[in-house]
Amino acid sequence: MTRQQLIQQIVQKRSYLCVGLDSDVEKLPAGLPRSSDGVLAFNKAIIDATRAHCVSYKVNTAFYESLGAAGWSVMEQTIDYIGKEHFLIADAKRGDIGNTADQYARAFFKTLSFDAVTIAPYMGSDSVKPFLQVPGKWGIVLGLTSNPGAADFELLPCGQQLLYEKVMQTASSWGQPDNLMFVVGATRSDVIGAIRKKYPDHFFLVPGVGAQGGSLEEVSRQSLTSDGGLLVNVSRAIIFASSQQDFAERAAAEASGYQQQMAVLLGELPAFA
Amino acid sequence: MTRQQLIQQIVQKRSYLCVGLDSDVEKLPAGLPRSSDGVLAFNKAIIDATRAHCVSYKVNTAFYESLGAAGWSVMEQTIDYIGKEHFLIADAKRGDIGNTADQYARAFFKTLSFDAVTIAPYMGSDSVKPFLQVPGKWGIVLGLTSNPGAADFELLPCGQQLLYEKVMQTASSWGQPDNLMFVVGATRSDVIGAIRKKYPDHFFLVPGVGAQGGSLEEVSRQSLTSDGGLLVNVSRAIIFASSQQDFAERAAAEASGYQQQMAVLLGELPAFA
Repeated sequence: MTRQQLIQQIVQKRSYLCVGLDSDVEKLPAGLPRSSDGVLAFNKAIIDATRAHCVSYKVNTAFYESLGAAGWSVMEQTIDYIGKEHFLIADAKRGDIGNTADQYARAFFKTLSFDAVTIAPYMGSDSVKPFLQVPGKWGIVLGLTSNPGAADFELLPCGQQLLYEKVMQTASSWGQPDNLMFVVGATRSDVIGAIRKKYPDHFFLVPGVGAQGGSLEEVSRQSLTSDGGLLVNVSRAIIFASSQQDFAERAAAEASGYQQQMAVLLGELPAFA
Repeated sequence: MTRQQLIQQIVQKRSYLCVGLDSDVEKLPAGLPRSSDGVLAFNKAIIDATRAHCVSYKVNTAFYESLGAAGWSVMEQTIDYIGKEHFLIADAKRGDIGNTADQYARAFFKTLSFDAVTIAPYMGSDSVKPFLQVPGKWGIVLGLTSNPGAADFELLPCGQQLLYEKVMQTASSWGQPDNLMFVVGATRSDVIGAIRKKYPDHFFLVPGVGAQGGSLEEVSRQSLTSDGGLLVNVSRAIIFASSQQDFAERAAAEASGYQQQMAVLLGELPAFA
């Protein structure tokens, strides 16, 4: 999906919601088997319930790999079920030397048909660039993440910058706003405005709203752009809104609630008024 | 596999060779189908040819993920075929927030029965610790990698240290020499001796010998310990030693050659004399 197509989705739906399919087999609601078949049935119900409210789905590969080959197959079937109208993110956080990164790009962009892959930047340029070389496909580089451990290295002073600032500065020279996004956690609302000033044109994938406690309103007020410029991910707070048989209805209600808040926040921008 | 069992294997075989199963379907030798079945047949032949000469196998997950669910199944069948006498490394370079890292640990330690997983440290403590909490299982944290891109961030001055030094220092407080190893590239022979002085008891997983040009002799002279303390990985130079039907014989000869060099290098240590 191109940048223009993504922006079109945001404008049409007045939403920049990404639904995170962190479909933990141990947390499936009542009535679904705790198996790979159960995960697929769950995903299909969640997708049907939320697809009108979101512009993107994020598949967290860990929850599928934990089921082995059957889980990998569920991931394939899930993205086929979603179709082509949503921006499909493999939240895989891959990163390896050049010839291996090529294989990961093949895995997620060709064998599977994701639009984007999240990338861990530690190993540097040759671990990132293979994800930026396929037209219409995106690399999403970890900048400042939402988790407590971010303080260990990402916030480390390295010369005149913090490590995450250096990472974003360097990585921004490897791609363009039409093939490179950054992960910036919603729990970092103290700095997301400053980050936006440096990168006015890049999309940010923002995890951490919902179960991790980040505020949609704060993040949006500080970093929405005239293109939208954000994909705000919510996982557990939508997909596990209920552990009972009404899980899909409750997920729809939660997703719709986020979309309505987003419509209001977008409406404050001249471009969306 | 425990530390003691690993050392026992090294002593018995007089080898610290790890064979990297970077089994690129596009590079399979003549006579094998370019399919997941071909990869499995190739792996079995390589394993039969090399198992006497090595103490470890490293499965590079990218080469299996690029084949989709079928590739994941080949990975499962490959480690089943190797059995329990080799130290089994998933070279997956995973790293994510706590609840996701838990799922990756389940994927590689429970659903699959790897002994160790390589871990990307960028996201900090909660992305690493879940791999250090299963008895007999290991996390292998990226320290200083063998690729050119390592210069982008790993070698960045951060206060009084380079980033990789800070990463190794911090990560070493999260685990012990019996559940934590570090990746140190063979192309870094200028500093591997200094790293060894700081971490005399940790095993290092050393990629970069062979196709990437690192020297087995230099690395070994600078960082072998009385426990061995090294797993030196060779991938392409062994598994793709020949592109013809003699690939398994040639792989056996290469692996045997490395093992014989290792026996000599170990023999220089009093503990192995």
